[in-house]
Amino acid sequence: MESIDKISGTFGKRCNEPKTNVSSAVIRRLPRYHRFLGDLLREGKLRISSAELSRIMNVTASQIRQDLNCFGGFGQQGYGYNIKFLYNKISELLGVNESFNAVIIGAGKLGCALAATHMFERRGVNRLAMFDVNPDIIGTRIYDVPVYSVSELGKFCKENNVHIGVITVPKEAAPEITDVIVEAGVKGIWNFANIEINLDRDDVIVENIHLGDSLMALCYEIKTANEKREEND
Amino acid sequence: MESIDKISGTFGKRCNEPKTNVSSAVIRRLPRYHRFLGDLLREGKLRISSAELSRIMNVTASQIRQDLNCFGGFGQQGYGYNIKFLYNKISELLGVNESFNAVIIGAGKLGCALAATHMFERRGVNRLAMFDVNPDIIGTRIYDVPVYSVSELGKFCKENNVHIGVITVPKEAAPEITDVIVEAGVKGIWNFANIEINLDRDDVIVENIHLGDSLMALCYEIKTANEKREEND
Repeated sequence: MESIDKISGTFGKRCNEPKTNVSSAVIRRLPRYHRFLGDLLREGKLRISSAELSRIMNVTASQIRQDLNCFGGFGQQGYGYNIKFLYNKISELLGVNESFNAVIIGAGKLGCALAATHMFERRGVNRLAMFDVNPDIIGTRIYDVPVYSVSELGKFCKENNVHIGVITVPKEAAPEITDVIVEAGVKGIWNFANIEINLDRDDVIVENIHLGDSLMALCYEIKTANEKREEND
Repeated sequence: MESIDKISGTFGKRCNEPKTNVSSAVIRRLPRYHRFLGDLLREGKLRISSAELSRIMNVTASQIRQDLNCFGGFGQQGYGYNIKFLYNKISELLGVNESFNAVIIGAGKLGCALAATHMFERRGVNRLAMFDVNPDIIGTRIYDVPVYSVSELGKFCKENNVHIGVITVPKEAAPEITDVIVEAGVKGIWNFANIEINLDRDDVIVENIHLGDSLMALCYEIKTANEKREEND
């Protein structure tokens, strides 16, 4: 079995850049590798060849080698990638080991659907609490996450070192919620409200999710495929 | 007031390509324009300058002119874009006017959260039905969408010309659901199950949604911003 050190040694040879400077194109592809490698680990697999990974991920083996060789994680030729090593390297690079704290603001259907998933824990993010205005659920726990009044949001974020605010409130309420959490020191906003949050500051990162844009892209692709079929008929 | 015909005339002059050949980079940006223009229309606005659109969308005015001039929609210089004309052109190009039919498979928290939004109607997609295995909700209506047994899924899709299947079932159930709806003639799959659906056929379009990848990208950005701050301190 090769040691981690030996593999890391290979890293320096293959990559000219320090690991924090992996190209942004590779960075954008890494969460997908993380997902597939995580699934393989949970299935108890230890190693995988680039050909096999290529098959299940539906990308070329040469793309995989390009993307992953910068992290080392491969032993002798023919033995494939060390899954756990690669998974850990990618986790580290992406910040999965940072133990960020998150709160979900809005305990409606979408907020609860997000709270119910393994998404947070798998990415090393702690769901500390949910916040809502509905007195019927304030004080309860949903999927073992405590629900507090939104009036306590700012204080809670300050006292509990909250890094990430997940916004699932109606669009009208989103700007005020944003002000509260940014003032309380939150460094990242994962916004599902149907409004774009653009902050004039570079110390808070915003990821706006617009599922409707994806539905629209799907409609466009279906329409285009239909048109092609009709042309060929 | 300029007529639509006159504006369309400009289209031919500015764009060398027929409208169905707008570059794929522009296509990817169009759903966002569609969202902002739709909001402006609902606010009762008729025209907007590229400077103002640039401000609210947080992109450069020159990018906006590049993206939108292919659609015409502008009158004399200084009058700005005709919002309704542009909105309709983009809708048409993206397939919003195709009246695609959709079903949501899985009436859990996420399925219901999706059903509750205006997302479908705003993109001209009809939510015909939801499907689930839970006898307590089969036969009821959720947000005015009827819920049927998943055993009726294939038959329903065939009889009702269903174009889009929205999958929100647990990952274990997703492959079988996929087989059923593809066999029933569905042309697009919007997949929220935590598994990638890759079909070996080009007549069915799949849009896999992995919210966790977006959370992970956010964690990466927060981590990188932290590191930069520490370097500068």
